Amino acid sequence: MTEHQSIPKGLVADLGARARAAAVTLAAAPTTAKQGALRHIADLLRAASAEIEAANATDMARATEAGLSNAMLDRLRLDAKRIAGMADGVAAVAALADPVGGVIDTAERPNGLVLSRVRVPIGVIGIIYESRPNVTADAAALCIASGNAVILRGGSEAIESNRAIHAIFARGLAESGLPADAAQLVPVTDRAVVGAMLTAEGLIDMIVPRGGKSLVARVQAEARVPVLAHLDGINHIFVHASADQAMAESIVVNAKMRRTGVCGAMETLLIDRAYPHAEALVAALAATGCEVRVDADLHALIPGLVPASEADWDTEYLEAIASAAFVDGLDGALAHIAAHSSHHTDAIVAADADVAERFLAGVDSAIVLWNASTQFADGGEFGLGAEIGIATGRLHARGPVALEGLTTYKWIGRGTGQVRP
Amino acid sequence: MTEHQSIPKGLVADLGARARAAAVTLAAAPTTAKQGALRHIADLLRAASAEIEAANATDMARATEAGLSNAMLDRLRLDAKRIAGMADGVAAVAALADPVGGVIDTAERPNGLVLSRVRVPIGVIGIIYESRPNVTADAAALCIASGNAVILRGGSEAIESNRAIHAIFARGLAESGLPADAAQLVPVTDRAVVGAMLTAEGLIDMIVPRGGKSLVARVQAEARVPVLAHLDGINHIFVHASADQAMAESIVVNAKMRRTGVCGAMETLLIDRAYPHAEALVAALAATGCEVRVDADLHALIPGLVPASEADWDTEYLEAIASAAFVDGLDGALAHIAAHSSHHTDAIVAADADVAERFLAGVDSAIVLWNASTQFADGGEFGLGAEIGIATGRLHARGPVALEGLTTYKWIGRGTGQVRP
Repeated sequence: MTEHQSIPKGLVADLGARARAAAVTLAAAPTTAKQGALRHIADLLRAASAEIEAANATDMARATEAGLSNAMLDRLRLDAKRIAGMADGVAAVAALADPVGGVIDTAERPNGLVLSRVRVPIGVIGIIYESRPNVTADAAALCIASGNAVILRGGSEAIESNRAIHAIFARGLAESGLPADAAQLVPVTDRAVVGAMLTAEGLIDMIVPRGGKSLVARVQAEARVPVLAHLDGINHIFVHASADQAMAESIVVNAKMRRTGVCGAMETLLIDRAYPHAEALVAALAATGCEVRVDADLHALIPGLVPASEADWDTEYLEAIASAAFVDGLDGALAHIAAHSSHHTDAIVAADADVAERFLAGVDSAIVLWNASTQFADGGEFGLGAEIGIATGRLHARGPVALEGLTTYKWIGRGTGQVRP
Repeated sequence: MTEHQSIPKGLVADLGARARAAAVTLAAAPTTAKQGALRHIADLLRAASAEIEAANATDMARATEAGLSNAMLDRLRLDAKRIAGMADGVAAVAALADPVGGVIDTAERPNGLVLSRVRVPIGVIGIIYESRPNVTADAAALCIASGNAVILRGGSEAIESNRAIHAIFARGLAESGLPADAAQLVPVTDRAVVGAMLTAEGLIDMIVPRGGKSLVARVQAEARVPVLAHLDGINHIFVHASADQAMAESIVVNAKMRRTGVCGAMETLLIDRAYPHAEALVAALAATGCEVRVDADLHALIPGLVPASEADWDTEYLEAIASAAFVDGLDGALAHIAAHSSHHTDAIVAADADVAERFLAGVDSAIVLWNASTQFADGGEFGLGAEIGIATGRLHARGPVALEGLTTYKWIGRGTGQVRP
């Protein structure tokens, strides 16, 4: 940093300094204070529904004029029902168990020194997201509940909506006796601020990108601050020879077609060459309207389908398309998954428990499932109450991440005068 | 990566690919196989003592000719006793509890899906270190015991010693039925290999630098791969008004003078203005031969001492020098520590438990201690059996890190055909 530092860097330095000061206060705040503030914010959001809708109407008008797609407009839109849902979400986070202060383990050393690892907030979390304004409320609530200060940088198209929602958080925090700076919104839409956040080492402790693949890829490529994210969900289901036919068809159809646009959707179906109902399985998937792109061996069995290209095995479709291939038993499945998985969620359908356990041990993904749909990859479904995101990195936290993943720990030692010999 | 990729990048890509393949095998290896291999390696190290000494003699001769300092020559030197200590260290790691496969928590969801978080190795660990050849054995043993493959890049001055030690690991692994590539030594001394390791995202999962501040600073500045490290140990002891005089003097002298060159050494002494024995405390420290650099108020009390400059509060001396200042009670101590601590280890000496607990809660460091010497900051002293390093980052692991910190987890879900509604 010099006197010539750029305006975005100066802005992020200011946001970061305020956030750090707020984080110190929030880290020491009792559970009741944090939860009370969130309940109050939920009430304020409900009461401010009309103002938030009005702010959103400004964003919607500008976005419509700018020719945004219908899908993007739908993500941007807030109505009374969605605002009520947002308030319910904040209230639900207020009801989650507070991880801060929890003792991970404790032990007395032979010299009488008692050592404990105690959960503490990470500090300052940066959230970089796109057009959904509800992320403002969801992410801020999770950070506050876990004792972290948050710096929110939403999409420029949602700036008025985000300002309205953020104003409620600032007011609710202050009215509850907590620092308003615990939740700050980047006040400008300058894209260079994202770059300044990504390199704000020492100011921001962790960045969570929420949005499409291009956003996550940019964040992962440029960030010097640690990032919690997943880039792809190239998820596999392996149907073993021992699989129950009805279960296999039910799980595969659900994993691909329940919602095709979620990161937990199955993208590749691997069928054991010894599974006797391969044709019926592929037919069941195709019958739901899914385009199934098949390898040469499956194509020989079912000639009507589209042949898969090499690129298909590394493609996250996020629509009603799946790739499918025959593999040689468990080892063939493990080899294919090792070569092509994005380490998000992979599943086996099998009646043979020994084969299933070898799959669960052998697949190196954040989530591995036996006889269950990959669409369960979600913090709510995992019992976490919410999620800040799903992580496919290897350190700190993997899979769905909620309050506990927003904490770290410190060692606390209580002695009676011990010195080291 | 292109056909024009540099030689270091190509070398690291090759090491990384071999390490990944070995890591898959090692992750699935039973505890007995890993521990048996390490015990065998310990035996082989003892048996190869003369060869290792001979290799070390080559390094020592070259280093002496190159005019290395006596301190560096001492770090480089291996003799029969040090090699026996190295072998004992490997055997001690073999006796540690294996974290891999441990179940962190497990819960059955209302739909019957049973979800567990299970510890798994991180994958491929890179160790970048300087002249001490015993790090080759220490770090490799910890990585193997936790199921990780390791890529070792030691100092060029220790290359013959490291090759001899590494050859024992490769042989011991192979003779125990584990992949020799689970422990690889970078075979060249080209410094550009370090840069290639630091940017080997996807090939190396975590880097641990072991060495002086300039090495750690370079690694932290250049790394794209996550780094586990600490840069400074600017550790404080706050002597509260309620402190027992004898305990305060004993802890302060031990924390500074037991070994001045370790990262857990006290660098700054903060004395409560209301503590009645400040002069005696400073005198006790000075009487051990420590140069005490004092703030203006302490200087007024004890005029004979060196006045501290502003830089002293941010200096890790690692020698018989300490800075000392008066502070206004707990709040003054917390403010000084927040401004100057490197978040490594900070301690309070106090009889007042309420004040002590507020200090333990309020200081944001990896290790916070009450009535104990900061020199306990060490994996062995913490009961971890060993340590790969001490981390002052906020994510993944903090403080002394041993086997558990070399693991991550995955979610394993066992169902009976569950699909998501």
